[in-house]
Amino acid sequence: MNKKNKSPNSNAKLWGGRFKELTADIMNRIGESISFDKELYAQDIRGSLAHAKMLCKIGILTEKELLLIERGLTKIQSEIETGKFEFKQELEDIHMHIESRLTQLIGEAGKKLHTARSRNDQVSQDVRLYILDQIKIIETELILLLEHLLERAKSSLDILFPGYTHLQIAQPIRASHYFMAHFWAFLRDLELFQHVKSTTDLLVLGSGAMAGVNYNSDREFLRKELQLSSISENSMDAVSQRDHIIQYLFAISQCMAHASRVAEEFIIYSSTEFNYIGLPDRLTSGSSIMPQKKNPDVAELIRGKSAMVFGNLMSLLALVKGTALAYNRDFQEDKIPMFQASKHILLSLEGLREMIAGMEIRSSSIETNLKKGFSTATDLADWLVSVKKIPFREAHEIVGNLVSVCTKKNVDLFSISLEDRKKISYHLIDPNYLEAISLYNSADKKNVAGGTARKRQLEQFAQAEKKLKLFQSKILTSKKKNSNKKGKS
Amino acid sequence: MNKKNKSPNSNAKLWGGRFKELTADIMNRIGESISFDKELYAQDIRGSLAHAKMLCKIGILTEKELLLIERGLTKIQSEIETGKFEFKQELEDIHMHIESRLTQLIGEAGKKLHTARSRNDQVSQDVRLYILDQIKIIETELILLLEHLLERAKSSLDILFPGYTHLQIAQPIRASHYFMAHFWAFLRDLELFQHVKSTTDLLVLGSGAMAGVNYNSDREFLRKELQLSSISENSMDAVSQRDHIIQYLFAISQCMAHASRVAEEFIIYSSTEFNYIGLPDRLTSGSSIMPQKKNPDVAELIRGKSAMVFGNLMSLLALVKGTALAYNRDFQEDKIPMFQASKHILLSLEGLREMIAGMEIRSSSIETNLKKGFSTATDLADWLVSVKKIPFREAHEIVGNLVSVCTKKNVDLFSISLEDRKKISYHLIDPNYLEAISLYNSADKKNVAGGTARKRQLEQFAQAEKKLKLFQSKILTSKKKNSNKKGKS
Amino acid sequence: MNKKNKSPNSNAKLWGGRFKELTADIMNRIGESISFDKELYAQDIRGSLAHAKMLCKIGILTEKELLLIERGLTKIQSEIETGKFEFKQELEDIHMHIESRLTQLIGEAGKKLHTARSRNDQVSQDVRLYILDQIKIIETELILLLEHLLERAKSSLDILFPGYTHLQIAQPIRASHYFMAHFWAFLRDLELFQHVKSTTDLLVLGSGAMAGVNYNSDREFLRKELQLSSISENSMDAVSQRDHIIQYLFAISQCMAHASRVAEEFIIYSSTEFNYIGLPDRLTSGSSIMPQKKNPDVAELIRGKSAMVFGNLMSLLALVKGTALAYNRDFQEDKIPMFQASKHILLSLEGLREMIAGMEIRSSSIETNLKKGFSTATDLADWLVSVKKIPFREAHEIVGNLVSVCTKKNVDLFSISLEDRKKISYHLIDPNYLEAISLYNSADKKNVAGGTARKRQLEQFAQAEKKLKLFQSKILTSKKKNSNKKGKS
Amino acid sequence: MNKKNKSPNSNAKLWGGRFKELTADIMNRIGESISFDKELYAQDIRGSLAHAKMLCKIGILTEKELLLIERGLTKIQSEIETGKFEFKQELEDIHMHIESRLTQLIGEAGKKLHTARSRNDQVSQDVRLYILDQIKIIETELILLLEHLLERAKSSLDILFPGYTHLQIAQPIRASHYFMAHFWAFLRDLELFQHVKSTTDLLVLGSGAMAGVNYNSDREFLRKELQLSSISENSMDAVSQRDHIIQYLFAISQCMAHASRVAEEFIIYSSTEFNYIGLPDRLTSGSSIMPQKKNPDVAELIRGKSAMVFGNLMSLLALVKGTALAYNRDFQEDKIPMFQASKHILLSLEGLREMIAGMEIRSSSIETNLKKGFSTATDLADWLVSVKKIPFREAHEIVGNLVSVCTKKNVDLFSISLEDRKKISYHLIDPNYLEAISLYNSADKKNVAGGTARKRQLEQFAQAEKKLKLFQSKILTSKKKNSNKKGKS
Repeated sequence: MNKKNKSPNSNAKLWGGRFKELTADIMNRIGESISFDKELYAQDIRGSLAHAKMLCKIGILTEKELLLIERGLTKIQSEIETGKFEFKQELEDIHMHIESRLTQLIGEAGKKLHTARSRNDQVSQDVRLYILDQIKIIETELILLLEHLLERAKSSLDILFPGYTHLQIAQPIRASHYFMAHFWAFLRDLELFQHVKSTTDLLVLGSGAMAGVNYNSDREFLRKELQLSSISENSMDAVSQRDHIIQYLFAISQCMAHASRVAEEFIIYSSTEFNYIGLPDRLTSGSSIMPQKKNPDVAELIRGKSAMVFGNLMSLLALVKGTALAYNRDFQEDKIPMFQASKHILLSLEGLREMIAGMEIRSSSIETNLKKGFSTATDLADWLVSVKKIPFREAHEIVGNLVSVCTKKNVDLFSISLEDRKKISYHLIDPNYLEAISLYNSADKKNVAGGTARKRQLEQFAQAEKKLKLFQSKILTSKKKNSNKKGKS
Repeated sequence: MNKKNKSPNSNAKLWGGRFKELTADIMNRIGESISFDKELYAQDIRGSLAHAKMLCKIGILTEKELLLIERGLTKIQSEIETGKFEFKQELEDIHMHIESRLTQLIGEAGKKLHTARSRNDQVSQDVRLYILDQIKIIETELILLLEHLLERAKSSLDILFPGYTHLQIAQPIRASHYFMAHFWAFLRDLELFQHVKSTTDLLVLGSGAMAGVNYNSDREFLRKELQLSSISENSMDAVSQRDHIIQYLFAISQCMAHASRVAEEFIIYSSTEFNYIGLPDRLTSGSSIMPQKKNPDVAELIRGKSAMVFGNLMSLLALVKGTALAYNRDFQEDKIPMFQASKHILLSLEGLREMIAGMEIRSSSIETNLKKGFSTATDLADWLVSVKKIPFREAHEIVGNLVSVCTKKNVDLFSISLEDRKKISYHLIDPNYLEAISLYNSADKKNVAGGTARKRQLEQFAQAEKKLKLFQSKILTSKKKNSNKKGKS
Repeated sequence: MNKKNKSPNSNAKLWGGRFKELTADIMNRIGESISFDKELYAQDIRGSLAHAKMLCKIGILTEKELLLIERGLTKIQSEIETGKFEFKQELEDIHMHIESRLTQLIGEAGKKLHTARSRNDQVSQDVRLYILDQIKIIETELILLLEHLLERAKSSLDILFPGYTHLQIAQPIRASHYFMAHFWAFLRDLELFQHVKSTTDLLVLGSGAMAGVNYNSDREFLRKELQLSSISENSMDAVSQRDHIIQYLFAISQCMAHASRVAEEFIIYSSTEFNYIGLPDRLTSGSSIMPQKKNPDVAELIRGKSAMVFGNLMSLLALVKGTALAYNRDFQEDKIPMFQASKHILLSLEGLREMIAGMEIRSSSIETNLKKGFSTATDLADWLVSVKKIPFREAHEIVGNLVSVCTKKNVDLFSISLEDRKKISYHLIDPNYLEAISLYNSADKKNVAGGTARKRQLEQFAQAEKKLKLFQSKILTSKKKNSNKKGKS
Repeated sequence: MNKKNKSPNSNAKLWGGRFKELTADIMNRIGESISFDKELYAQDIRGSLAHAKMLCKIGILTEKELLLIERGLTKIQSEIETGKFEFKQELEDIHMHIESRLTQLIGEAGKKLHTARSRNDQVSQDVRLYILDQIKIIETELILLLEHLLERAKSSLDILFPGYTHLQIAQPIRASHYFMAHFWAFLRDLELFQHVKSTTDLLVLGSGAMAGVNYNSDREFLRKELQLSSISENSMDAVSQRDHIIQYLFAISQCMAHASRVAEEFIIYSSTEFNYIGLPDRLTSGSSIMPQKKNPDVAELIRGKSAMVFGNLMSLLALVKGTALAYNRDFQEDKIPMFQASKHILLSLEGLREMIAGMEIRSSSIETNLKKGFSTATDLADWLVSVKKIPFREAHEIVGNLVSVCTKKNVDLFSISLEDRKKISYHLIDPNYLEAISLYNSADKKNVAGGTARKRQLEQFAQAEKKLKLFQSKILTSKKKNSNKKGKS
């Protein structure tokens, strides 16, 4: 557990030639990134394989050297994935680890791999590949979540649910409407990630330290090889900017903000007092002391994780603020927030999906409270206006009195006696009274595009399915493309 | 200056009927938003005009009532714009101010305007219109900035500039490359704002309090009337989410992060020590005490403003975190950060543009330091390798010695005597020596796509012009559409 | 409402002498701070009065000049406070406004006031005085809040309340314990503000632009005159740092985080479903459409405002990040977040206090749910262990079965029939059974220091009173000192 | 590298008895904290040892059981520190790991250790102990840094340095003044950490889940045993609040903001263009390609790390925002930001100290630029006023002309010919002219308390030494106390 493992001081640094002093111990400790950037190993190797092929194509590497490099890198990847690779703080970062091991394995040819590139363009490319890989996984998770939300919405079309404003019961809605509200929010996240992809999906290799390289690198070849869409137009911008990371963290933040709201609702709805939903045992925890406890931990953790990713985003914005172009070493710090946020969102989307799939909706508690909350008082007033032709102001007053009596007698609009109703107004003894305060009728009167009426719900399902299909096919295609890619390389 | 102006307590609140107590003074003071949301007056009136037409179309308003409303709203707009409108804290927000004044002006018809809408969908729509309006202005400013950057790049194609990494001189670049680096960054902002627009450009009116409205509102009519692209699919999501504001603040943050970097560079480059650029007097300030001072205030303020908008974004993310659907009063706080960030970005883009247009580039200081910084030492080593066929390691050593002697004698690679060169290596007396260390040659060797070579700069200009034209025509079209719209309404 | 009021271009700038160009319009608009820093007028005048006296003491001003200045500044203060003072964008900031008006009023003597100070030390001093003034008001509000919390705690000593973890009912507590939990949190805020005061309470006047002044200013005289505690030791640090503002924003953030938690609870507790507290009508809003609504707006706005101040703090941290010493113009942006956060906290503390004072606790809902939530199941198991000498595991099982049967029969531990209890275990027919599950007993068994037992509550009240008295006397003293000061000047 | 290691599903959870389903895999993965909270092992064991002693004292554990527990915990600590301890995801957190291993080692007595405490109070106590431990280390680092700053200040008392505002040379200062400016900033950090300590230094054990415990725990005994200063007054507040963590992160943020400013200056000052300081090779990096590069990586990383901790603080504030009391599972996320920020500050303080100790000040570049920047133009004007009795306006004009001629002829006030001076004004041929523009004289004229005059520097050193000594003795004492403590337990 000793964090300050003093590394054997090394003068084997790539750039160490001219320097008179050994690197200071603090320089090694503050500068190392291997403890976290090893997460980029696969992207680094993929980038190097493409780079090697390109170098061979333009005559810098021989076919034989290329073969050696390909074998070496493949071996290194396998060593890392089987836990046999040795990581050392003094080799600083993942790039140097792989380069150094490659030279160990195949000799001089290993060194030539670094021709026509710099760590500045290399690391930027690695991170771009990493983000693209992560977004693919996130997209899959998002689509799964959307499918579950839509499924749940469909199966709860005829279940009522309270619609809130200010956490006060406002109007009865169909539970499907509730689930679909979240559906559209997460769909926006999926759309936002498309924009992030378009920003990230860029070849930056060939930008060198910042001005370009002194070789006639075939960047178009590299682009195709790495299955990227376009090529950076300016080498200085390419190594200086971190917009792709910041946009990625922002998309995660927006998504986690959405997740935090669902989480909050599930926490509240599964309280003893609300008792609207029941989370499955497997997603809750109990207490060793209090046998009655069933805690919505997954939801709470998701709510908490949303706060984490907001901080990650803040870190990155503050990081780039006021830094002169081009590359600055500050940027090394960009990775930890990126790795963390990636993990937070994936766990959260999975947790959310599981809760949505496994939760039980407790209609009877809901109905009780919809009635207790006088959620159709407005509908009664409207009915007095439109059917009984009573002026709105008077109608409002009659309903007001009624609510008042109900409260005093601790009954609701449904259970108040005919006699009591009669005392307030003879209009209220109309046999259609119950229909006027019907919870379902109330919902179905919101028969406007996007409203909670049954008919509109079915419309909404259709729209959702269409959108979802679009993304499903897109992702499926991209996955196939991806697996083809894997086959090739 | 007394901020706590105790408002005459009012029971004229729209919802006040059933309430036994007068609204508390603190409730009025903490709840009022008129002090800032009056900024939305034009959007609120535009939305109301569309709503009124729609209500007339579906038979809720008569033609005559519509006419009254249109006249009333037009009058109110003019009252506000000429400073004759009276704002009162007890009327809480801009919506109530306009509604109340309308009823004052035209009587009962004014009250009917609120049919089939709620303040929840109304305010969300207003803000969407506001953001769309602001983005149009921002786009214009961004395009102007891009034009100036491109112009400046073109006119400084043959001026050298230092390329930095770690704020240490790395390689000579063409100044055009530097300006273009920022060009592409701001172009990404323009692209990001397109995504924000697509998220924002949505009709939400008709969502009511949260479940839809009880009327057969023609939302397609409203959409067309407000020249929006699509209609919200879910009324609950429509009034609950603030993604458009958060995305807007994020786009501003990304753009201001870019601006902060240019600002930092201009601050450093205009210091006595760098002396690479001179800012025009009109954009700097002096000191009443120190006559030699010329401070880059505009750049500093821009750098400072970037920090402000990051905070604005954080406020919004934290605001929505963990809030149950649908509308919550917390959301009233979403406006101040939005208004502030809008002002920050507009001032900053204008300030940046003026600096870029007006600054002077001081080539001689730059050249002196490019030489002093041995910026072409690598090129000399490369020349020894490729022309003199000396192994890289040896070449590196020769150049190392040369640099060392230069430092001791306080000369640079250009001014060191032939004799001194000869002592180090007879290769260095080659008449091509000066060409080998030429600053321009160094830049032109970066002849890779996106590199700083002259040829590649011209390529980059062409790419930039193409992209810029695309956006120029887009914006122009949208402006025409817009002015047509104005004509109509 | 036109924001871009083009100011008549001015070459009357204090430092304008040497400059060839008129200040650019954008420079005026981006640089002006008068639109917000006029809030500092009183502090600026107070500082100037002290400075003038000091200048007179060291012989730079004559007694007559001092008199003129004092009269002039007093007149200006009155002009501002009665709304007669004219603010102009081209005079940039509050300092120039006052200086310029003073010279207008009293001629040359007005100009001499700026001797031996710079705007850099002047503005820093003004802000320090402002923060000290604000903290005094905040302290008063905090103490009032603490008094109300303690009062409420005392009056609800014998009311039960649910203790939650994970928003699941955990154990019955005394409502006093709940209010006292918040008491201690806000007391920590009061303590934190003491630290902020100690950081802020510093004379920085005399630091000049950054290196000190060329005059033998009597800083000790200034310190006494402004009733400050100490003198800045380093002129460069004095004008460069913004720690006092950042600490102030942090203290506000901590306090608002506390407030947001109370707010969240009040929102949840006042929902129809919980129905544990009733907020007074005067602090809630209704709906023009839905007559049953009673929304906890004040609580929601407080929760929202907490997010705002977090953003303010982030802005300030990002603002100072990576800025070279000493003063930078970026720092002008430090004021808006400070003014905003000041308003947010004061409104919030007042709102909180009013809610605490006016709310009603609904014991019967609480008791129902404490029973429904089996909040004393653990106590029953403990009783079986300690009285019936049953092994814990077996006791746990018996209670588990009991809870299970209750759930099936929709009863609670109190209402389940003797017969049913008997079936599960004959131990459960003990006449002490009801005592074993007593809610009050459960609370009183937490008889450890800081626990919820009645005896411990009384202890807590005493501790709280002692702490509170300490602060009350401190503030009272400081207020007296303050009013004396006002008398003098 | 596979992150998703599916844990063998466990029903061995402490609270698992009543639950029908096995814990879901996602619940294990999202809920585990052992991957990071193992960092708390030492504090957890220390807390458990104290708790065991207390349980023995109040008769819950026998002496023999206590002995077993002490031996077991000691063994576990040694297992962890020697890398022999096995960590498993399904055991969730460090508390369960230690508890579970203890029971494995010593049987039933191990289980009894958890009597009279809950994980809620346990984890809160662990974190408090952790923060107190970390602050001790940070204090030591801060004092070392302060010592180095003071040392450097003393040794550079007679070296001149440019004083900047707006990064434009303002006035010559003594280099000591510059170092001391940072001294006082870091001293404020040390003072802020004292406040954090006072907030953190609290016994919370005995608070149980949230209401206190059912045992007569001797909390005073626990307090003494853990060498804490006071006892939490309210069990609910004790387990709910995270103020100590947030304050800790804030103190780190303030300190890192200071560090980022020094870092920025070192980056700028060590550029080729400024060339005011030289950082030692051991703290810089070179380039494998560009042999002339010497990059200030340590400074850049520190500047970057400041952004990270701001994000950490933001995460924590957002985390607690709007969470109902008492413990919520969200709070588990509080630890990663705390651990990260702890590492960032320690590395940064060490890096800063090393740079300050090792850097070289390049007086000749500095002097050249102080002259080039006309840094004493004001002094010359002042001299004309006070010695030659010329009105200020005229004096200002003469100096203005002089500066103008200098600029044209590319000379400075020191090198301009007597003849040229004569042409402008015969006053300028006074033999005292050079004294009037002397850089040292300029500095020494700032002879006000806190000013840069030599005499004032010596005063400042004395004040600094006094303050420093105070803290040194405080820390020394506390360390002794600490080592005694270790001896005892």
